[in-house]
Amino acid sequence: MMYGILFGVSVGPGDPELLTVKALRTLERCFVVAVPRTGGEKTLALDIARQAVDFSGKEILYLEHRMVRDPEVLKQQYQENAAQIAAYLKQGKDVAMLNLGDVAVYSTYSYIAQEVEQMGFSCQMIPGVTSFCACAALLGESLTVADQPLSIFPGSYSDLEAALDIPGGKVLMKSRHALPSLREAIAARGLEDRTAVVSDCGLPSQRIHAITDEDIQSYFSTVVIKPE
Amino acid sequence: MMYGILFGVSVGPGDPELLTVKALRTLERCFVVAVPRTGGEKTLALDIARQAVDFSGKEILYLEHRMVRDPEVLKQQYQENAAQIAAYLKQGKDVAMLNLGDVAVYSTYSYIAQEVEQMGFSCQMIPGVTSFCACAALLGESLTVADQPLSIFPGSYSDLEAALDIPGGKVLMKSRHALPSLREAIAARGLEDRTAVVSDCGLPSQRIHAITDEDIQSYFSTVVIKPE
Repeated sequence: MMYGILFGVSVGPGDPELLTVKALRTLERCFVVAVPRTGGEKTLALDIARQAVDFSGKEILYLEHRMVRDPEVLKQQYQENAAQIAAYLKQGKDVAMLNLGDVAVYSTYSYIAQEVEQMGFSCQMIPGVTSFCACAALLGESLTVADQPLSIFPGSYSDLEAALDIPGGKVLMKSRHALPSLREAIAARGLEDRTAVVSDCGLPSQRIHAITDEDIQSYFSTVVIKPE
Repeated sequence: MMYGILFGVSVGPGDPELLTVKALRTLERCFVVAVPRTGGEKTLALDIARQAVDFSGKEILYLEHRMVRDPEVLKQQYQENAAQIAAYLKQGKDVAMLNLGDVAVYSTYSYIAQEVEQMGFSCQMIPGVTSFCACAALLGESLTVADQPLSIFPGSYSDLEAALDIPGGKVLMKSRHALPSLREAIAARGLEDRTAVVSDCGLPSQRIHAITDEDIQSYFSTVVIKPE
């Protein structure tokens, strides 16, 4: 019997219409759907996919994911998740793992897929729309100008001040905890007018804020700094 | 009569299955489709979209685009393209302009839309899959590691050596002309094993090369340097 394949399926940032045709087809033909379930994120990726694909008759495999920083604990967690998935692959069943945004950009999938591959199984990634591209579309702004870079930073990056000094467009993802210090650094550089904050892009709770707005609550807030 | 709206539609990097449902629906309901036509790019975006949507009965509006660097000539070209589009918008007809990859990342659309907006019309962007996300999926690799940035550079960036020294994952788009000097700089840093070059991602001519491969011909080649 052939082993199943693990598909890393990008579901995009929130709007179910932002799934690709390839993601839809992959989800339609996989009967096991793996969903990371964490404190903050809950099952948002599943909520999005359910609006685009009929999940009746599918088996949902929840991958429990505690929000920890310890690399040893994280590694063990990914191995446990991989073992859960491998149990289906061994039976010849394909598994589609859901991922918010694109599966190559700050995804949980990449860590779990590494473990699954080390166990001897095949994995395949289905690319999708990143949250920062969706934010740019919502703002009606390009992230780039010709000949200049585009820099994407996670809110947890250690040197966000230096990040602001890189030329070109800049995006800070999952920025909530970094917002107070970022707000100051952006003001010091006179970048307020070129900065917008989008929270919950593509979700019903979606909002556009000015960086000066102190009332930004969502963990899924994205700071977009337009290039000059 | 209501004016029409200009939609900037991302068609993704090449595989017609990588259009989003939203892009498909937008193309289906717009009867005028604007297509930038240049020397190198030809009508690639149209070739991709045609495989996903029935174009019979649609009017194709070619936006002639000469490959020039002079900002004055470029600006005039964008104004001419905008005027071509505006002629339809004035008649109440929506126009869908096709863009390779995502419309917020190094797109021609953003320059033309600026002119269209200044003429008093509304524009809307439909986000899509970037070529770099598709390259990462093809390679089966994440572009990021936790807490580190992701840097996207155009091949025309003036200081690619400095770009290599930024922490985290790095992507160089449309890299062909930069490849010889880049190859040297990558070798000098011992980054060969972490580097892959994808040409024509998603197209039938798609290929994965090592950076040491001197036989890379395509203008649409993307250099992906994995994070440590």
